[in-house]
Amino acid sequence: MHCNWGVVKAQDIDKAKAGEIVESNKAMKFHVLNPDILDYIKKARRGPQAVTLKDMGLITAYAGIHSGSKVVEAGTGSGLLSMYLAHTINPGKLVTYELREDFRAIAIENFERFGFKNIESKLQNIYDGVDEKELDAIILDLPEPWDVIPHAQKALKVGGRIVSYSPSVNQVNKFSTALPEIFSQETFECIQRHWKPDTMRPDTQMIGHTGFLTVARKLE
Amino acid sequence: MHCNWGVVKAQDIDKAKAGEIVESNKAMKFHVLNPDILDYIKKARRGPQAVTLKDMGLITAYAGIHSGSKVVEAGTGSGLLSMYLAHTINPGKLVTYELREDFRAIAIENFERFGFKNIESKLQNIYDGVDEKELDAIILDLPEPWDVIPHAQKALKVGGRIVSYSPSVNQVNKFSTALPEIFSQETFECIQRHWKPDTMRPDTQMIGHTGFLTVARKLE
Amino acid sequence: MHCNWGVVKAQDIDKAKAGEIVESNKAMKFHVLNPDILDYIKKARRGPQAVTLKDMGLITAYAGIHSGSKVVEAGTGSGLLSMYLAHTINPGKLVTYELREDFRAIAIENFERFGFKNIESKLQNIYDGVDEKELDAIILDLPEPWDVIPHAQKALKVGGRIVSYSPSVNQVNKFSTALPEIFSQETFECIQRHWKPDTMRPDTQMIGHTGFLTVARKLE
Amino acid sequence: MHCNWGVVKAQDIDKAKAGEIVESNKAMKFHVLNPDILDYIKKARRGPQAVTLKDMGLITAYAGIHSGSKVVEAGTGSGLLSMYLAHTINPGKLVTYELREDFRAIAIENFERFGFKNIESKLQNIYDGVDEKELDAIILDLPEPWDVIPHAQKALKVGGRIVSYSPSVNQVNKFSTALPEIFSQETFECIQRHWKPDTMRPDTQMIGHTGFLTVARKLE
Repeated sequence: MHCNWGVVKAQDIDKAKAGEIVESNKAMKFHVLNPDILDYIKKARRGPQAVTLKDMGLITAYAGIHSGSKVVEAGTGSGLLSMYLAHTINPGKLVTYELREDFRAIAIENFERFGFKNIESKLQNIYDGVDEKELDAIILDLPEPWDVIPHAQKALKVGGRIVSYSPSVNQVNKFSTALPEIFSQETFECIQRHWKPDTMRPDTQMIGHTGFLTVARKLE
Repeated sequence: MHCNWGVVKAQDIDKAKAGEIVESNKAMKFHVLNPDILDYIKKARRGPQAVTLKDMGLITAYAGIHSGSKVVEAGTGSGLLSMYLAHTINPGKLVTYELREDFRAIAIENFERFGFKNIESKLQNIYDGVDEKELDAIILDLPEPWDVIPHAQKALKVGGRIVSYSPSVNQVNKFSTALPEIFSQETFECIQRHWKPDTMRPDTQMIGHTGFLTVARKLE
Repeated sequence: MHCNWGVVKAQDIDKAKAGEIVESNKAMKFHVLNPDILDYIKKARRGPQAVTLKDMGLITAYAGIHSGSKVVEAGTGSGLLSMYLAHTINPGKLVTYELREDFRAIAIENFERFGFKNIESKLQNIYDGVDEKELDAIILDLPEPWDVIPHAQKALKVGGRIVSYSPSVNQVNKFSTALPEIFSQETFECIQRHWKPDTMRPDTQMIGHTGFLTVARKLE
Repeated sequence: MHCNWGVVKAQDIDKAKAGEIVESNKAMKFHVLNPDILDYIKKARRGPQAVTLKDMGLITAYAGIHSGSKVVEAGTGSGLLSMYLAHTINPGKLVTYELREDFRAIAIENFERFGFKNIESKLQNIYDGVDEKELDAIILDLPEPWDVIPHAQKALKVGGRIVSYSPSVNQVNKFSTALPEIFSQETFECIQRHWKPDTMRPDTQMIGHTGFLTVARKLE
């Protein structure tokens, strides 16, 4: 393990318990922690633009999903959101669709590295259809989410939800106006601003935009 | 069931399945849905100012909690966040502290009405101490969250997190500067802005502020 | 003068100097001030949706206008922005175009009431053309600002600017993509958030959106 | 004139009229423009952190100042805001206080380079007092703006305004609570978000914070 603060021996880390301290050859001290889902997300290999933790929390909350939920996601991308969703719905199973073989390979590498058992990865275009039925939620992070609406309508249970994440207002407009009346819907964005609590001021630089979320619930 | 669109018979609703339609005496049609956690939160009785769904999602994500997590929360308030947390960590148990008997009564009414089995409600001041040990997370929505820090330090497992929700920058400053160095920490707010997707513009009126979140992780 | 705190005699106010106090029949005390531009804007008669003071400041700053500038504005609306602009460029003259006679009547009433001499109001559709030449700036608050671009190109001096104010992203997109390459351009919004300085927190309710500003400069 | 696109001869630029094109030795074409206040601000030499154009517009609007206003500013810093204010109130005179000789030297260099005649620069601590009387506005960008309040109270005309710009909520709180009741007051921030109009989305990176503005009006 090489970093700016020296070299730490892997066997020292392996032997240590959570909370113990290991030392690098530069005598810097490191806390050893058991990794959790947030560590997995930070350490995962990243290919395409990944959804932020803020949006993962919002997607999950507005989808109304939890342990045992049946959820489909597309596209997989690097699989970071997949891991968050799978973690939330465990022992429920997440099915995730991805068209590009290269992205899927990164995602599968992440799922295996962090030991996820409840994710099924499909090399399949969700615009062609959704195989699953009676879903609690469908999570979309796709360029043309409106093409999934007819499939989602069949695949969702009554009361189930689509949550679609899009960076552009244009996509939001097309998705929203394509939703038939049997869906209730709302659209919002959340602008995250970090603060410096000691000087009581926001950070100067911030991420001004990630994506808009449209949440649609199937009513009949 | 009386509303602006007429009267619907309770027995009609009881007989209906999810997705079926019942009619009011004014011939208005209503979709019958099985309620889920988001319906419970919307329909819960509210006493003190409740945490929004946006913040529930963010608190859960940044706390890194999920099915099976051991979590303590204070104060209970009307119990809306309690229900969201309990739902997320089920079958893990949520212990929630509340000092005021009147708030606690509202919360317990909500828990019973919606059938929550994995919430333990304590009429107890968390400033006096935390009984639980090896916690994954402690969630605070309190006027003086800094008074909980010494107790949280003992009650959290190594790698566990405190998430504190406060409306005022002053509270954030006091909480943050009271955290000892064995906690890593970050503070942020999320400003939620709803959009009208058809006219491609944000709503004119919006909620400008709910609260700041400080997330602290115990490192040793 | 009738208000919630009683009746104040107009002749008492007329006799008073700035800073003096007059009393209502309920013994409430009122400070008498000389009105300035901000008072005019607050007290003006309002018909259509008016531009906020925040946006007036931003429009003026990004237009780069000041005492002596030659400026055209459309549409006039209730004339609040007209008054702000005229005040800024005085003794320069503002020419303001308005298609609707009812709006123009409200605006002229405001201009006369507050004694503005440097505003020329035209009952004319700016989509048909701009009569003026060598303008420093053209300020647009119109449903289809892109229809003004060819006219603005002729009417602006080299280095002059268009500032277009639109509530919808769709309008912004159409205006921006219609601008020929001889214009440099930028688009932004400013989200104004009021704070309670005593409790160190933002107001709960806020105006989430007024409009987007696109600033374009004619380079040749 | 050297830049990434080659070398342009200064005499070519001097000979050219606004809107004409000069060529670099790499055959790149450049538009020649007459500089205006926004060009001066962009090209000014910068020492300490400068106020943004957005805040210049807001400060001016909320101060209610215009051609002929009598204004005092402190501290001068690099003099960018000074130039904007002086430009707005011309032929009114701006008096600007600065404690640090090095900052003042940068500011004076800027004032002279761009030909400002209506700025008087004082090497003087405004905490010790304000020499001027019957001011329309006092603009403060200082670490301890509350120390100026007693002086401002004397120096402002009735109906005049202080606008104080501070990066920290703590400063805002101290300034606001130090204002005596004869001032009305409001505090806000404006979060500027740039957009990409072609793809209809906000920029990913943005400036999350510049400063809070407190506007106080002297009522008697």
